Amino acid sequence: MALPIFASDALSSVAYAPQELLMILLIGGTAFLALSPWVAGAVVLLLIVVVLSYRQLVKAYPSGGGDYEVARTNLGETAGVVVASALLVDYILTVAVSVASGVDNIISALPELAPWRVELAVGFVLLLIVMNLRGVREASRAFAFPTYLFIGSVGLMIVTGLVRWALGDAPTAASAAYDVQAVDLSQAAIVLLVLRAFSSGCSALTGVEAVSNGVPAFRAPKIRNAQLTLTAMGGIAIVLFAGLTLLALVAGVRYAEEPCRLVGFDCSQPQPSLMAQVAAATFGGGSILFFVIQAATACVLLLAANTAFNGFPLLGAVLARDGYAPKSLNTRGDRLVYSNGMIILGAAAIVVLVVYRANLTTLIQLYIIGVFVSFSLGQLGMVRHWRDVLRTRGGRRHEARSGLVINALGACFTVLVLVIVTITKFTHGAWLVFLAIPVLSVLMIGIRRYYRDVEHEIAIDDPGDEQVHYGAAGDVAIVLVNRLQKPVAKAIDYALAANHDTTLALHVAVTKDETDLLAEQWREHRMPVPLTIVESPYRTYAGPITAFVRGYRERHGASVVTVYLPQYIVGHWWENLLHNRRARRLSQQLMLVHGVSITLVPWLLDSSALIYGRRSRPLPGADRGGGRPAPSASFGLVDHVSDTAGPAGR
Amino acid sequence: MALPIFASDALSSVAYAPQELLMILLIGGTAFLALSPWVAGAVVLLLIVVVLSYRQLVKAYPSGGGDYEVARTNLGETAGVVVASALLVDYILTVAVSVASGVDNIISALPELAPWRVELAVGFVLLLIVMNLRGVREASRAFAFPTYLFIGSVGLMIVTGLVRWALGDAPTAASAAYDVQAVDLSQAAIVLLVLRAFSSGCSALTGVEAVSNGVPAFRAPKIRNAQLTLTAMGGIAIVLFAGLTLLALVAGVRYAEEPCRLVGFDCSQPQPSLMAQVAAATFGGGSILFFVIQAATACVLLLAANTAFNGFPLLGAVLARDGYAPKSLNTRGDRLVYSNGMIILGAAAIVVLVVYRANLTTLIQLYIIGVFVSFSLGQLGMVRHWRDVLRTRGGRRHEARSGLVINALGACFTVLVLVIVTITKFTHGAWLVFLAIPVLSVLMIGIRRYYRDVEHEIAIDDPGDEQVHYGAAGDVAIVLVNRLQKPVAKAIDYALAANHDTTLALHVAVTKDETDLLAEQWREHRMPVPLTIVESPYRTYAGPITAFVRGYRERHGASVVTVYLPQYIVGHWWENLLHNRRARRLSQQLMLVHGVSITLVPWLLDSSALIYGRRSRPLPGADRGGGRPAPSASFGLVDHVSDTAGPAGR
Repeated sequence: MALPIFASDALSSVAYAPQELLMILLIGGTAFLALSPWVAGAVVLLLIVVVLSYRQLVKAYPSGGGDYEVARTNLGETAGVVVASALLVDYILTVAVSVASGVDNIISALPELAPWRVELAVGFVLLLIVMNLRGVREASRAFAFPTYLFIGSVGLMIVTGLVRWALGDAPTAASAAYDVQAVDLSQAAIVLLVLRAFSSGCSALTGVEAVSNGVPAFRAPKIRNAQLTLTAMGGIAIVLFAGLTLLALVAGVRYAEEPCRLVGFDCSQPQPSLMAQVAAATFGGGSILFFVIQAATACVLLLAANTAFNGFPLLGAVLARDGYAPKSLNTRGDRLVYSNGMIILGAAAIVVLVVYRANLTTLIQLYIIGVFVSFSLGQLGMVRHWRDVLRTRGGRRHEARSGLVINALGACFTVLVLVIVTITKFTHGAWLVFLAIPVLSVLMIGIRRYYRDVEHEIAIDDPGDEQVHYGAAGDVAIVLVNRLQKPVAKAIDYALAANHDTTLALHVAVTKDETDLLAEQWREHRMPVPLTIVESPYRTYAGPITAFVRGYRERHGASVVTVYLPQYIVGHWWENLLHNRRARRLSQQLMLVHGVSITLVPWLLDSSALIYGRRSRPLPGADRGGGRPAPSASFGLVDHVSDTAGPAGR
Repeated sequence: MALPIFASDALSSVAYAPQELLMILLIGGTAFLALSPWVAGAVVLLLIVVVLSYRQLVKAYPSGGGDYEVARTNLGETAGVVVASALLVDYILTVAVSVASGVDNIISALPELAPWRVELAVGFVLLLIVMNLRGVREASRAFAFPTYLFIGSVGLMIVTGLVRWALGDAPTAASAAYDVQAVDLSQAAIVLLVLRAFSSGCSALTGVEAVSNGVPAFRAPKIRNAQLTLTAMGGIAIVLFAGLTLLALVAGVRYAEEPCRLVGFDCSQPQPSLMAQVAAATFGGGSILFFVIQAATACVLLLAANTAFNGFPLLGAVLARDGYAPKSLNTRGDRLVYSNGMIILGAAAIVVLVVYRANLTTLIQLYIIGVFVSFSLGQLGMVRHWRDVLRTRGGRRHEARSGLVINALGACFTVLVLVIVTITKFTHGAWLVFLAIPVLSVLMIGIRRYYRDVEHEIAIDDPGDEQVHYGAAGDVAIVLVNRLQKPVAKAIDYALAANHDTTLALHVAVTKDETDLLAEQWREHRMPVPLTIVESPYRTYAGPITAFVRGYRERHGASVVTVYLPQYIVGHWWENLLHNRRARRLSQQLMLVHGVSITLVPWLLDSSALIYGRRSRPLPGADRGGGRPAPSASFGLVDHVSDTAGPAGR
């Protein structure tokens, strides 16, 4: 069961890696395709080394922190933050690339959808956001099916195609007839082109690191099972990648960066993906198996995008826990998922998809840099780890030595590939990633410093320093009154119940009519607290109130001032739009005044009583005339006013 | 001075009305242009009638409520709400149409900007939003210049062009050579086409109503001056509209809805606006006067868009005052402008511009329906008004009778035009407006009903019914404690100062380590209130706290529970992203619990002290070791903890 969950990311890259590899070679002309077995072989070799290296990492750091933890532990804070930034960027690009490739494969099967490429891609991301916000854990068993279907159907296609080839009836792609005119290239340009093809092929490696982040989710023996999964995943990825590349060469598939350069191709049409061309050549373009393969490919790609929706929020939460990211990333939403991280990931992926018009070839240029940054730093960290083990601990020297060799090899390979990828992709758009990673890193270190400063600021340094002051000052409660209505009456009720030294009501006179009416009602109702009226020449509220508070403190000496504000509680989010923000803005401004605290006295409006009523304790007592519920003896009188907005009698 | 402020909207429509009129006629073929003088004549006649009608309206309703007030007073709530909806929709479209036309005229002068049409339009709207949010009142004198420049330069162009025509040297537009092939049209189709051309020409009438909404802004005698402005504006609009249409015909301007139908025109290029073509024909395409006219036209169009930024928020505030719109529309922002209304208007205009790709011809199809709905209902309301005057009052019968005749005529014309506009534009996109107006109207009536219900719910019905209960119940303060830090110490301070019957500290145990540390520190610091610890099996906060509050009330009888929550006050908006939302979410959930009120005890972080420090009273006393300011004697001890975050000594 672990395979489908972790493998969809790694395996899905088979859907685009061979295509992009061949496409880059084809820039040089059809003749360059002869180089593809060598380039593909290099990618396979790299894949083997990386899988072996990660088997070591999983063993040494089984806690699920992955490259971030390895780099942070062994290479210091900066390396850890850089790895984290690289991974965050790459999670975003995983979503963008996988969705773009998935949409490509859908369009290859249903070309009439071509005009809605961007809309489809954005739609899928929105779908992933909603699914993940609602919590898809329970559906993870359903994830197994498309992955196995993908492995099975693509495997069947490779076997069928190669058998037909062996029998002399090699499948032929429709595009085999098209030709690309050779370009005159210098020696250096040829080398660069081959390296670019290799860089693009390396996108097959993405997702290998997923297992190392998920070790805690494995069944015991965790490490052993994680290593087995890694090996199985690597094996399948190599078979599919090599087989698909070979079959595409056999079938003579031509996939061009600029389709119009394909002589004979109607380039106003969308170019079918390599997967679709191979499937059509092997099974026939209208066959059921063709559609099965396209559907399975699209599903696996969307699953791969989905894994980023697990990884990104989890990494965000780890970073928040360590103080490198806003704490809200470590807060679980209503359905116990890290909803903020999911929304950020989805929004970023949508921006990327819209800006790059969901164009796979352009997106691939940005991709895998982040992966190789984290690969490289992770492997370097592992080298450091084994060296430390060798230096300090006596036992297990043999294990540490073999680990050192493997991870040193891994580090050499991944650093080399990182250099190649950087050289070949930088001017093709990857500079943006090279800008994003340091910016994110600096931001994270800044956030960490900010939290440390706040922590330092609010720490109580000196025991016995503060409790001498408790409760020594004067105390006054000010109830803000706009009109004499039930919420205000309840606020006065509460203020009186709290036994403040002084309680008074304050009204800001904005229009004379309302003020006169209030003063009259105040007398008429024989309100138990005195009403103070302050003038507001500029029709503002906060100014006169803060002036009054300051003046009061000057006249009566230092006192704690508690300002009582009635606060509406509504049942529907849209009702918030209809209630004035005045109370909130007022409280924000009042909190800046020395010695002031704000007491919010909630008033549940009808709609909220209907919605939240069931949550609070049901009221005893029946209606007693006029539709008002009877005050409950056990609740006492103070509750009475609030009870009228309660669930009873509605 | 009143002319430029109010007239830019009405006069700017001259920049697109003749163009759209001729364009629609040209759909039928070049021969149809012969009908244009008749169509233009009908528009001029309508303009005269509407100006006369509004002179009456200004006299009868000088308070600035315009059509909304007239319809609401005379025809009832529904009519008023419909007029308001129509006007709101039309304000949005005024911005969209004016900006789109302004960008068109800029592109006509600088064709290399053509690819950025939408971006330019959105940019201008953003500029208008920012300008208006900052309050542009003081710059209104600067508004006069472009308007006078527009009147002057376009007037000069018309005179020059017509004089050259009279002298036999008629200016000839570059597009005069292009031809449009005649289309075979049925009788009915011809009539419909002429009516459509008339409808598009009627866009020249937009903005006439602006004066009626701005009467209070005039100098005394207000009514007389407003009427004079109306007449002057109408006169100038007629001269410019008629002159420009005539000159375009003389110069043989061809402006096509589908530029590719113009035989001879390279339709990959942007089509220059009619204004640009006439200016180029009269003064030469590269002349200074050509660029002056294009610049003045663009400026006046942007000014017209700007008038909507005055009108929309003002109407929104009036609607909010009357209870038909959220009260926040009646709240002035920091710079005393109705900022919410401005943001809504700008955002809506941007959406419209993006959806319709800033295409003037498409946008014009939606336009003026709102204007004519409000014209018609306003005039019908005026007819009712005069009839009531005639029925009730003895004097001024003569005036009422002439008013009745004029407004009845106005009502007939505007209703007729509304019918024509509806028929000709409905299928061309205007159905959207016909959907928006009733939806908005229903929404407004719903909002009004909601406010009335709330008002009823919170009203105190029965004098002497509520004050018996004041202060009769038990009272407990609960200070929520996460870790023992200064903000918590301050909250305890404040709770003790308020003399509650009972004060206790409550901690939710989420991780054992933190809880143990807290308990130890609590003893070590000899805190003056007892610490209660509740377990949280699901790592949530709100659940255990509400359960504790409910349990406490059950054990101790009904009491008012005041929950004290420390609240961070930060200096920069982005710092809010870094502080946990937990306090806010907690307070929202606690407020649903019976008998609970929330006291927020502010804690000013360093950054806020730097920013807000100057606003609060400066502290006496100097630093006393360790960077902590000395407690000020006059403030007393309770202030001390808060003072450490205050402005002193930083």
